[in-house]
Amino acid sequence: MDILAIIDKKRLGQVLSDKEIKYAFMGYLNGDIKDYQMSSLLMAIVIKGFNFKETLALTDLMLKSGKFLTKKDIKGIRVDKHSTGGVGDKTSMIIGPILASLGLKMGKLSGKGLGFTGGTIDKLDSIPGFKTSLSIKEFIKTLDKVGFAECAQTDEFTPLDKVIYSLRSVTGTVESIPLIASSIMSKKLALGASYILIDLKLGSGALIKTREDANKLSNLMKKIGKAYGVKVIVEITDMNTPLGDNIGNALEVIEAYDILNGKKGNLYELCVNLSAKLYKEAKNVSMKEAKNKVKEVIDNKKALNKFLEFIKSQGGNYNKIKISNNIKEVRSLKSGYIKEIDAKKIGVLSLHLGAGRINKEDNIDYSVGVVLSKHKGDYVKKGDILCQLYQKNDKNYAIEARNAFKIN
Amino acid sequence: MDILAIIDKKRLGQVLSDKEIKYAFMGYLNGDIKDYQMSSLLMAIVIKGFNFKETLALTDLMLKSGKFLTKKDIKGIRVDKHSTGGVGDKTSMIIGPILASLGLKMGKLSGKGLGFTGGTIDKLDSIPGFKTSLSIKEFIKTLDKVGFAECAQTDEFTPLDKVIYSLRSVTGTVESIPLIASSIMSKKLALGASYILIDLKLGSGALIKTREDANKLSNLMKKIGKAYGVKVIVEITDMNTPLGDNIGNALEVIEAYDILNGKKGNLYELCVNLSAKLYKEAKNVSMKEAKNKVKEVIDNKKALNKFLEFIKSQGGNYNKIKISNNIKEVRSLKSGYIKEIDAKKIGVLSLHLGAGRINKEDNIDYSVGVVLSKHKGDYVKKGDILCQLYQKNDKNYAIEARNAFKIN
Repeated sequence: MDILAIIDKKRLGQVLSDKEIKYAFMGYLNGDIKDYQMSSLLMAIVIKGFNFKETLALTDLMLKSGKFLTKKDIKGIRVDKHSTGGVGDKTSMIIGPILASLGLKMGKLSGKGLGFTGGTIDKLDSIPGFKTSLSIKEFIKTLDKVGFAECAQTDEFTPLDKVIYSLRSVTGTVESIPLIASSIMSKKLALGASYILIDLKLGSGALIKTREDANKLSNLMKKIGKAYGVKVIVEITDMNTPLGDNIGNALEVIEAYDILNGKKGNLYELCVNLSAKLYKEAKNVSMKEAKNKVKEVIDNKKALNKFLEFIKSQGGNYNKIKISNNIKEVRSLKSGYIKEIDAKKIGVLSLHLGAGRINKEDNIDYSVGVVLSKHKGDYVKKGDILCQLYQKNDKNYAIEARNAFKIN
Repeated sequence: MDILAIIDKKRLGQVLSDKEIKYAFMGYLNGDIKDYQMSSLLMAIVIKGFNFKETLALTDLMLKSGKFLTKKDIKGIRVDKHSTGGVGDKTSMIIGPILASLGLKMGKLSGKGLGFTGGTIDKLDSIPGFKTSLSIKEFIKTLDKVGFAECAQTDEFTPLDKVIYSLRSVTGTVESIPLIASSIMSKKLALGASYILIDLKLGSGALIKTREDANKLSNLMKKIGKAYGVKVIVEITDMNTPLGDNIGNALEVIEAYDILNGKKGNLYELCVNLSAKLYKEAKNVSMKEAKNKVKEVIDNKKALNKFLEFIKSQGGNYNKIKISNNIKEVRSLKSGYIKEIDAKKIGVLSLHLGAGRINKEDNIDYSVGVVLSKHKGDYVKKGDILCQLYQKNDKNYAIEARNAFKIN
């Protein structure tokens, strides 16, 4: 077989065989195929497409390129949840304890943040003592005992996805529905869940920008799941506004606590809804019954206690979380209704405050971030507080912060 | 500017601005843009295309990425000739001396051979003492004195084309008419000729496989030439059969001598025709007059003497050329008409004999090759000699050689 002939076939829009896909992708993983060859092949795939059979072949190679868990590894009903990224998205820290306290098993591998969207691992790292690096053995042990475990992605799972994802991010070959689907699904399938909820973000700042593409990606992931006997539930949600009030690592852990402690609002509604959808499928009950169960474990603090148990079991101490005490209030310069709070602008502001990284090597400050005081649809008067900035320096970010609020 | 945004634009089929093309390509030349980024951009260009303005912008960047000659550098009427590659193609060694003896100036930079098509530099290197590496100053001096000079490509001319061409050859991004046109034209324009003849090979073994693509490439090169005030003449020729009788480095120099010494046949006709086309344009005379002039300098040996003068002026000694004396005859196993002599198969045979290289680093044997005894359309009887193999080893290549002849 010959990589140039394979690239040529895809350039001409032809379908690649399983053998050709294996030759190209596993050859890349083991170094026989070069970066510049894989990137021209990826661009041909992005433009000319991958049919279902090709997508499944790639997903399977990614899944089996490393270790993967099966039914035998984890007892009980295994669920998983994935978000395609957002600003202020701390839902997995909330949903995991809810479902665990309802008897399900949710084990998640998460990434670090890059750019204006945060990563759950950074949020967990803000808890003093918390171990985000677990061995597979430790991960399974925690999951078995607590029912919820979350740790950093390791090279042991889906190494092929890891190298392809890195290359795509620097070669303009990210925007391909089959490539996105195989990347997400291989990572999820590797953890052996039977029910997978995908929180698919739609919006100008998200990877998926149109409803049509969201539906295509959703259907493709469901079809891939089906091929492995796994139920995939896709929830398409708007990511034009930040999720919840707090943006920034320690601040988001605190907001997760608050929601599990009964704080209401959009984020509460979203977490109840997503948890119920997974519970409904896993337990085969009605949505109404599922919602009641979910609200019950929030109301009776079972979920909150599970959250604290989860943190403790991975070595963390919730009470020692630190947030900056240098807090600047940003006030509105005019009166009117808040038409929009731009998620991307808030994400970039949080990045500038030091809560995120621009380059992979950057250090981040867990104690800084943004707390929104008002929400989309609220009426504000001139002089009202729009948000609070938890800072470590004394720079003035007021103009940048106000810029994220569209008030009419 | 941002390379990912530029790749994205082309992926979506949008037109790149001159500034964006400069940012991407000059950035690649100076190392800011990586191999894997340029290769995904190239694939997007191959699939989505480059319009005339984009093609011209790239050609100009390539031309001006290094040194280039202008009217001031070479006195007289400057012509040039380029072939897109073939088996047994020694036409430039014949046309150069013809046109030089008619008072024109033809200076050529040529490459080494790779794969089954030979390179003129290897052929010239078979002449003992011949210097194929000339400085620009030496090149101009020889051209000025003799009227014909041919030497190896140097990094001083069109370095951008050089790096892009290398990357295209290993990333499956060769087959793009705009990229082929900008590569050929930048190299030709860099030598400052006013009249350029392109011998465009068409056939299954050639880069250009259909008449439609040949016409597109031809028109594009003419249009690029026009933008620089240069007349481009394109001759589309069949490359399904080898050019002339001799294939192999020293053997081809000897055949060039023979043609200039009056040997008739298809190669003679082709060289007279190509020479006359360039002469006609450069001197603004009729094709008939041009052909007569060309035949005259062959008949009166002026062109042959110019050929010997050219070799001597670059330090070579024609009389010292060596060919192998281990000659094997290949005879026909049946009687019939020769329907076809497969150029690619003869090229590969010559490669196996040691006349070419598979990898860039391979050493070649100048003294080996193939001499065809019969031509397309000839009738052969069983036992007739089809060709002679000039070998250095004692392997039996008879089956491989016979395989190139289609006899019915």
